[in-house]
Amino acid sequence: MTQTSCQEKTFPVTEANKIRVAKRAHYDEATVHAILDEGLIAQVGFVQDGNPIVLPMVYARIGDQLYIHGAKATRLLKQLKKGLPVCLNVTLVDGLVVGRSAFHHSMNFRSVNIHGTAKLVEDEQEKYDALVAVTDHLAPGRWDETRAMTTKEANATTVISVTIETAAAKVRSGMPIDDEEDYASDHWAGIVPITTAYGQPIDDARLKQGIPVADSIKALSNRR
Amino acid sequence: MTQTSCQEKTFPVTEANKIRVAKRAHYDEATVHAILDEGLIAQVGFVQDGNPIVLPMVYARIGDQLYIHGAKATRLLKQLKKGLPVCLNVTLVDGLVVGRSAFHHSMNFRSVNIHGTAKLVEDEQEKYDALVAVTDHLAPGRWDETRAMTTKEANATTVISVTIETAAAKVRSGMPIDDEEDYASDHWAGIVPITTAYGQPIDDARLKQGIPVADSIKALSNRR
Repeated sequence: MTQTSCQEKTFPVTEANKIRVAKRAHYDEATVHAILDEGLIAQVGFVQDGNPIVLPMVYARIGDQLYIHGAKATRLLKQLKKGLPVCLNVTLVDGLVVGRSAFHHSMNFRSVNIHGTAKLVEDEQEKYDALVAVTDHLAPGRWDETRAMTTKEANATTVISVTIETAAAKVRSGMPIDDEEDYASDHWAGIVPITTAYGQPIDDARLKQGIPVADSIKALSNRR
Repeated sequence: MTQTSCQEKTFPVTEANKIRVAKRAHYDEATVHAILDEGLIAQVGFVQDGNPIVLPMVYARIGDQLYIHGAKATRLLKQLKKGLPVCLNVTLVDGLVVGRSAFHHSMNFRSVNIHGTAKLVEDEQEKYDALVAVTDHLAPGRWDETRAMTTKEANATTVISVTIETAAAKVRSGMPIDDEEDYASDHWAGIVPITTAYGQPIDDARLKQGIPVADSIKALSNRR
């Protein structure tokens, strides 16, 4: 990936990430980052004993690094820290595309596929920054509102980084594309939007009396 | 997987699908099928040239078979029809779990992991039934409302089946589990529900005048 001033960064197109339908493909950094930043869960794929494993993980992005984390004992993290190649997919579903024929049914979505190599984060500062980013990815500003992390907690947590080596976004939007001769038919066609929304925050049953909903959480409920 | 009358079916627990945190693990067929039937997108993982690939796909379930489909030219399907081992993950996100410490933040979710072997569906009837199931998985009853599938469309479509060999569901629900000494603190804690909802159907711009929204789509909008 190269960057020159005033030029938009794009990821290289390779055999591994090339998208067949060109009009749905986006390799520019802005599109890739926007999807990563809006998603909450990445499906992380790796190979174990020759077989594929795909697990859902929360994550965060700092620059061109993705971070995932978990308990030290987690099988996934024990594997990944060996430095395995990984593929991460983040998909945001935007709607059903309802054609006049079953053949032209589809989904509207924004999806990004990342290929990179998992690496154990050993630098203490990078590990700290990654944990802040993962928490703030769930709710921006949340880290500063929480009880400070203890050394014991930091030690119990494994953080893995993945440098984005190649990335490809695939986006479909808009109406179905039906066969020309079907447009005059009596079959209904259109789209059904699908939205993901935050509901009203619910206090923990053991919340100390009089504690208001945290600012980061209030902001979240108003965000979507 | 064995079945005797009046006994609930469960999937075998193996090294590949065992979930570390036992209280979140479910291997019974009812839980696994319920998550598969509610999800819209499966992240399908397979190995290509030793590297993991994860792609989002619509799918459907008939009994213990999962079906995915796509254009014949699709790279994924060209690979899978060779009979590769696959891992499918379907994850439904239910909420943010907001602890008093960053360490005890989490997500509420229902997730299922399937391991099996991809197989090209060659039997015409099975292929037809799978395409009906995939369409009706998006909107129950939709297949019967659409213009009949042509032979050309059937020929242009590849259908892959995956027999569910092992399956494990992981479910987290409810409030954060904080450290006992943190409960008395002034930090807010609780959950933020996340809901996925259908919006009002939008007519295709070229819809023939006077055509009402299809019944399957109306039912969908009222379903969630």
